Amino acid sequence: MKNNLEKLVTAYRNEIDLGLKYLRIPGEPSGLYKPMVYSATAPGKRIRPLLAFLTGEGLGVDHDRLRPAALAVEVLHAFTLVHDDIMDNDTRRRGLETVHVKWDTNTAILSGDGLMALAFRLLMETDADRIRQMGFEFSQAMLEICEGQALDVEFESRLDVTAMDYLDMVGKKTGRLLGLSCQLGALISDADESVAENLNRFGIELGQAFQIQDDLLEITSDTRNMGKSLDSDITSGKKTYPLILVLGGLSMSEKRSFLEFMKINLDNRKAILDVFQQKDIFTKTSDKITQLMNNALKRLDQLPLMATENLQYLVDMISKRQR
Amino acid sequence: MKNNLEKLVTAYRNEIDLGLKYLRIPGEPSGLYKPMVYSATAPGKRIRPLLAFLTGEGLGVDHDRLRPAALAVEVLHAFTLVHDDIMDNDTRRRGLETVHVKWDTNTAILSGDGLMALAFRLLMETDADRIRQMGFEFSQAMLEICEGQALDVEFESRLDVTAMDYLDMVGKKTGRLLGLSCQLGALISDADESVAENLNRFGIELGQAFQIQDDLLEITSDTRNMGKSLDSDITSGKKTYPLILVLGGLSMSEKRSFLEFMKINLDNRKAILDVFQQKDIFTKTSDKITQLMNNALKRLDQLPLMATENLQYLVDMISKRQR
Repeated sequence: MKNNLEKLVTAYRNEIDLGLKYLRIPGEPSGLYKPMVYSATAPGKRIRPLLAFLTGEGLGVDHDRLRPAALAVEVLHAFTLVHDDIMDNDTRRRGLETVHVKWDTNTAILSGDGLMALAFRLLMETDADRIRQMGFEFSQAMLEICEGQALDVEFESRLDVTAMDYLDMVGKKTGRLLGLSCQLGALISDADESVAENLNRFGIELGQAFQIQDDLLEITSDTRNMGKSLDSDITSGKKTYPLILVLGGLSMSEKRSFLEFMKINLDNRKAILDVFQQKDIFTKTSDKITQLMNNALKRLDQLPLMATENLQYLVDMISKRQR
Repeated sequence: MKNNLEKLVTAYRNEIDLGLKYLRIPGEPSGLYKPMVYSATAPGKRIRPLLAFLTGEGLGVDHDRLRPAALAVEVLHAFTLVHDDIMDNDTRRRGLETVHVKWDTNTAILSGDGLMALAFRLLMETDADRIRQMGFEFSQAMLEICEGQALDVEFESRLDVTAMDYLDMVGKKTGRLLGLSCQLGALISDADESVAENLNRFGIELGQAFQIQDDLLEITSDTRNMGKSLDSDITSGKKTYPLILVLGGLSMSEKRSFLEFMKINLDNRKAILDVFQQKDIFTKTSDKITQLMNNALKRLDQLPLMATENLQYLVDMISKRQR
């Protein structure tokens, strides 16, 4: 079973890559379409379209009927990356220069907008009775992703961010699109409303778990790439999950001192890690990841066996890649 | 008849303003929603939702069923303004500071994205059999608006822009959204496919006519506001319709000289106007406006009487306001 699923995932990835390559995007005006093609075809793990395919098929939908929605969620993802990279001033993405660096900010704004329009157009190619609801959920998710991004920025200048605030933020910024991908697969099938909503929650919890895992890796990893990104997180005041736990019991002035201490010790990672270690933050963070992941997986019990197996396999695969 | 239509338009405008005010946009995160509300409720002529209402009703649709689509096109319009203002570096819009000036560029990018998502969500509230096609046309129009913006920017650095290139560009940048507004009204009704497409063409030609009229007013107007915007058009190399006609018969080096001549004479408007006058550009431009307007109005002959009267009235009203 696992072996077959592994082959299937590889086949679907190839199909998605091909689909993204042949989106019937015109060549002109090249100022719009070249950066759109560049972003849409940049290498990626294709988690979101895989979620849409494996959920929908697990619920009995014919593979071909799922394709437009699967491509739509990946193009929507590409849109969020292009605009986020401008806002976060990131220079590299998926091994390539970001659009606003390779071209300029205006080009990145415009081609991001174009990707968003294209994503919606792709979705509307779906043949499904609940297409209106799919469109509604798609745009609602898009709005929540914007909320997540706004909260992430807002948190940078706040000292009172709680673990719950954080979970809400990453649930929107990262989780909702994973949830949407599953939800669309379910809405194309004849599954109940409640199944679609349950799968949305599954995706949100999965996203929360992955994001916390990212935060954890970033602080514990020794690789230069991760290190750089940690430096910029510390400088900008980004509120990661481990940091929120460290700050948790402190007074306002203690919080300020600790953030200052981290900035001063950018080149002395060990001094920072020792504090996290003393407060047992890494264990607490791992426990939270496990808890969220278990909650997410428990939701799969309510699904038909094939959908459960499909999604369990995907979760397994992503978890391994992240470690 | 006209008198009643006048009252109706005023009533609908109030309704649209109220609709925009009560969009059920949450308060938090304020970094996203405050600028969204600010842009969506900024004063405006509400041409696009009026087109949707008057087209749809003229084709027999109940007023209430048109509301979500009418609000959707206005919110989509607000989105384009927020992002265009960043790209064009405009500081004022609809009598207010632009979002990227009042807040910052990141906020303007994000709240523009939010408006785009909201526009789709509103559209998806429409109760219509052809909702899938409406969603497809909506996103296709959005993509064409992006194309128009990309072409407008591209033209700034080009000397070989023809009148046809220009018409294609403004047809996309300005006309397509007017066309879409009519088209959605028709798609909610039980009118034929061909009626919807004909109305789309009507909107495109109308947009082309209005945009050329804008270009003409900008160069002939004496008001300080218009003058400033002409200065920035000349400096950036913007290809307006009258300018394209002036450049039409010239060699490459003559074109360069003339653009240089305009830059040098920014404060000597008369010297510039004299050249346009000598070449009879203002008459030729007016003739083109009349021709496009007549083409547009001729398309209304194919509609039921009520739709024709509604749209003729609206065209009349907009033309007068622009003069």
